[in-house]
Order: sequence, then structure tokens, then C-alpha cells
Amino acid sequence: MKTLLLSIDHVRSSLSMKEVIQAVEEGYQSYDAGMVQQPDIVSMEMPANNGETDIKSCYNQLNERISVKVASGFYDNGKSNDLPTMIGTILLFDGKTGAPLCIMDGSLITGIRTGAAGAISAKLLARKDSKTVAVFGGGGQARMQVYALCQVLDIQEVRVYSEYKDELARYKDEVEAQEKVRVVLCDTPEEAMKGADIAISTTPSKKYLVERAWVQPGTHIIAVGADMAGKNEWDPEVFRGAKVVNDSISQCVSRGETRNAILAGVIQESDIYAEIGQLVAGQKPLRENDQEITLFDTTGMAIQDNVTAVKVYQLAKEKGLGQYFEFI
Amino acid sequence: MKTLLLSIDHVRSSLSMKEVIQAVEEGYQSYDAGMVQQPDIVSMEMPANNGETDIKSCYNQLNERISVKVASGFYDNGKSNDLPTMIGTILLFDGKTGAPLCIMDGSLITGIRTGAAGAISAKLLARKDSKTVAVFGGGGQARMQVYALCQVLDIQEVRVYSEYKDELARYKDEVEAQEKVRVVLCDTPEEAMKGADIAISTTPSKKYLVERAWVQPGTHIIAVGADMAGKNEWDPEVFRGAKVVNDSISQCVSRGETRNAILAGVIQESDIYAEIGQLVAGQKPLRENDQEITLFDTTGMAIQDNVTAVKVYQLAKEKGLGQYFEFI
Repeated sequence: MKTLLLSIDHVRSSLSMKEVIQAVEEGYQSYDAGMVQQPDIVSMEMPANNGETDIKSCYNQLNERISVKVASGFYDNGKSNDLPTMIGTILLFDGKTGAPLCIMDGSLITGIRTGAAGAISAKLLARKDSKTVAVFGGGGQARMQVYALCQVLDIQEVRVYSEYKDELARYKDEVEAQEKVRVVLCDTPEEAMKGADIAISTTPSKKYLVERAWVQPGTHIIAVGADMAGKNEWDPEVFRGAKVVNDSISQCVSRGETRNAILAGVIQESDIYAEIGQLVAGQKPLRENDQEITLFDTTGMAIQDNVTAVKVYQLAKEKGLGQYFEFI
Repeated sequence: MKTLLLSIDHVRSSLSMKEVIQAVEEGYQSYDAGMVQQPDIVSMEMPANNGETDIKSCYNQLNERISVKVASGFYDNGKSNDLPTMIGTILLFDGKTGAPLCIMDGSLITGIRTGAAGAISAKLLARKDSKTVAVFGGGGQARMQVYALCQVLDIQEVRVYSEYKDELARYKDEVEAQEKVRVVLCDTPEEAMKGADIAISTTPSKKYLVERAWVQPGTHIIAVGADMAGKNEWDPEVFRGAKVVNDSISQCVSRGETRNAILAGVIQESDIYAEIGQLVAGQKPLRENDQEITLFDTTGMAIQDNVTAVKVYQLAKEKGLGQYFEFI
């Protein structure tokens, strides 16, 4: 049998952010409906090489596809070699036969499906008239979140802060070229938060950047960076009284920003309002007034990779992209 | 960068059982020396499709390779399609950079590395003059165990029993063509055990086949079939007083034949004599007399896949086998 192979370029030309947002929404709903088997994340660490490897896998009963993503972060890459820091590979198997259908680069998909998650939360929870976005971090995910958000809201200003100031000029150029927004470079986190309707954090920070006092009533927060124990971007006090939504409660409680708020004693697990899939499915009220602070904590779920990769696979086949290889 | 792709035929022509036995011995030693990070096995089940998928992954600090094996069993394959029941795919990543080095078929490797495990245990624990082997099951693993055993001992007779009698004629033809042994087809498990120096069980049985009374003093038992809760090939009484060796104690206690003996109250975890890696490393006495019953319970470890796949990868590169694909 033939397995389709797709490079990062094939993946890039196979799908748009709009399609990914739709696919991830459907994925969240499948998860909420109990159609998804999603084993715990597998983690291996290579501290001597400043690297880590995670495996996120799931079976989605709705599309009958098993997905396995092997994603690595090796933080010395680019110095002694020309490899990217983040490398990912996604395998799709037929859930009816176990046959390997497709193997594709997964680096781009991780970025784009995470961007999509943020946008879905904003569509559901941000104020409809949101125009100004604070962004923390100036890397790939700081771009993806804005690109995705611009698909669902009429964003006009991006106020970006990064500890690494030298990356911000390029960030501004690229984001302004891609979307009809004005990018304002900010010297402090507090400055970035000024007038923000939505605030997105995408850093690897281990000590929080954003104080509770800087968050205005009515803000929607998208907490992306904290995806393992020890990472922290937000003052835990931000969680007090906020409408807290998780992608997966079990994951966010064990490795997300939500973990920090629980450890700090600000909230308990029972204070988490909902999983995002429940909101997509219309099971609970969304934002209830313009004063509420809403907070979406996302640690990244295998179902996002599953539905995005299946979409890529379908579109690549339609477009005749990629090469085939017969493993068996 | 280029990733090497190897089909089942490339894998087959890349390595011999002898090399795999050596590689797996080295793997067991790395594991024993604490050089291996081996996360828990990930399992997904597709009962509606009579299928299951496991992921076995590890990082071997000795060869600096991360391996991920995705292995499926879909037991209706071959009826409505022409796919094999067991399908596996192995990915090798560079433990220094996370780069995907090689993707290969893993179906054959699972069989061959499991055969190698049995032979390693026999080399260490069976009586040196062992000549007669009882084999339960007539499938692929029932062949592999014999092929591997013939590398390490002077086996002359194979006494095979299978519930599926119609597969035995082909088993006899193939094994006799491959090795200098006489294959005797047996009507009952008791008949297979007559005069056996070594007894190997490779069935998916859920109720034990072999009674304690049929096991002669001095026998070495290789328990392969029971690799998940609910499977059982041996009367738990066989464990009483036996020298019990596991590949991984944590795995065998939770999903191997050893689990059944513990649940039956015949032994406790503390009665397990050693992990196989300790014996390979010479840390404990092996068989101490000709009367002792020794028992090796193997559930299959990711480190076996790792070292075998790395060997395949090296040899395939030397021989110029396979194709390359650039994912990134």
C-alpha cells in the first residue's frame, strides 16, 4: 500500500487559516462529544542536548483517523547546525485498518492549529467590538495568533512586547504586510496592555510578565505559552473572578497556566467554567456582559493535530501534492 | 534535510537475526545501566473495528537516538482487504537535534527483536545441552523464536502445538526448510511438553494452555504471548519456586504473564529474580543447577525497537538501500 509523504512546503500550500479554524472547532466538538481517545502526552528530555521530545496521539472516531505527532524542541539548533528549533512529524493511520496513510511535516501545523485555537476562543468569548490586541512574545506563535484572530474579528492595532527587542522590527514588518493592522512596539508589558481588548501571551516565561492591575474589565485573555509545569506568564490573580476556559481541563490543571493559579490558591479546579468544546457545542453561556474578564488557557491537544492533519491530507490529495512510498 | 525511508523489503535485507540478538543484548544493558528513558506504552483501542494501536517510544542515551514505534493489530484485516493484521512503523530521530533521520516499516522488526529476546534469555538461562523445544502457537512469532534460538543453542527437535491445526503443516515446512531441526506436530499441549528442555508460548490465549504438572525440572520457559492484562498462557503455579526474569518488571507486573501469577497469589513482585538486563550485565548468577525451572516473561520494550531500528538504519545506509524524502 502507498503512504503519502508531505513536506513542510506541501503542508503550507495545502491549507489556509480559515480552514484550520473550522477543522479545530469540529475537533473540539468531537472531543466534547466523547468521540476522541486522547492518551496522555509522552515526554522525553535530553537535557545534555538542551532538547525535549513530546508525543501527542489520538484516535478521532468521527473521521476514523489515528494521529501521532512527534514534536521536538532543541534549543541549540541553528547555532551548530542549520536546523529549526522546533521540528515535528505527524503520522496519520486509518482507524479501520491501522494502515499508514500519510506522513507529513508537523512543524507548521503545530503553529497554525494553536493560532486557530486562540481565534476560536476569541470568537466565542471576546467582546464583538474588540479592536486592540496586546501580544507578548515576538516569535512564530505571536504571528499565528494575530493571523488567526484577524479571521474572526476586526482587529486594528497589535501592541507587542518582547524581552528580545531585536526581533520586534521584523515582527512589525511581517504582521503589517500580512494583515491590515498597525503594530505598535512596546517597551514594557504594562504599555502593551494599554487599551487592549484581547491579550495573548506566547512566551516561554518562567516568571509572570503581566500584572492583574493592568488588565481592564472586559478583556479576553489567551494564555498560550505555559504548556508545562514551571512556565508562567500571568499573575495568578488574573484568574480571580475571571471566566476561565481550558482546552483540556486535565492538561491545563497539570501543565497549563491554570496550574499556576491553582497552586497559588487563587482558584480551585471546580472554578474552571468550561472546556472550549462545551462552548463550541453551545452547552453553556458565552461572555455574559462587557465587564467580564474571560481567559482561555490552551496547552495544545492531539485532537487539534488530528483534524488539521486530516484536512491537509485531504487537500493535498485533491491537489496532487506530495510523493508516495510503499512501506508495506 | 533528508529522511531515509525503508520498506519492509529494505528492512528484511538489512539485517540478520544474529545482529539483532547482539543489538538487543546491548539494548538491555543500556536499559539496566539507566541510559534509557522509556515512557509508558500508549494504547488506543478501536473495538468497533476489532483493532488496537500501541506506541512504544524511548530515548537511548548510548546511541543518542529517539525511537517511536506505532504498531497496530487489526484482526479483521485480510478479510475485507489485503492488509496484514499487524502493521508497524518506526521513526528514528537524532537525540542531539530532533531531526527525523529514518522512517521504516516496523512490522518485521517487532517479530525479529522479540525472537532475539527469547534467544538471549535461553543463552543465559537454559541448560547448555538443551535440544528439544516445545512451541505454542504456529504464527510468525512461533517461527521467529525458533530461528533465534537456533543461533544460540544446538536445537534438534521442535514440538509444536496450536489450536489452529491447519497452520501447522506450513509451519513444519517453513521451519524445517530454514533450520536443521525436526518439527513434530502435537495434538495436545501436554504432548508438546514431552521431553522439552525449553518451552515457548506465543499465543493470544486468554486461558492458560500449559499445566504445572507437564513442566519438567530444568526447563527454561519463554512467555511471549501475554503482553496485556487478560492474556494468559501458563498455569500460575509454574511460577512457584521458578527463577523468574522479566524484560521490564514494571511492564510484566502490569501486563505480562507475571501479572497473572501475582494476581493468583503464587508470587509477589519481590519474588521476581531480575530484569534481563541485569543478567546480560553479569550482575547476578544465572541458572544454578540442572533442576531449576527458569522463566523469562517478555512484554516487549521500546529499547529493543530502538537498537534494532538503529542497526537497520546503519546497515541500510552502508548498503545504499531506501529512498530519501525532505520533510523540512
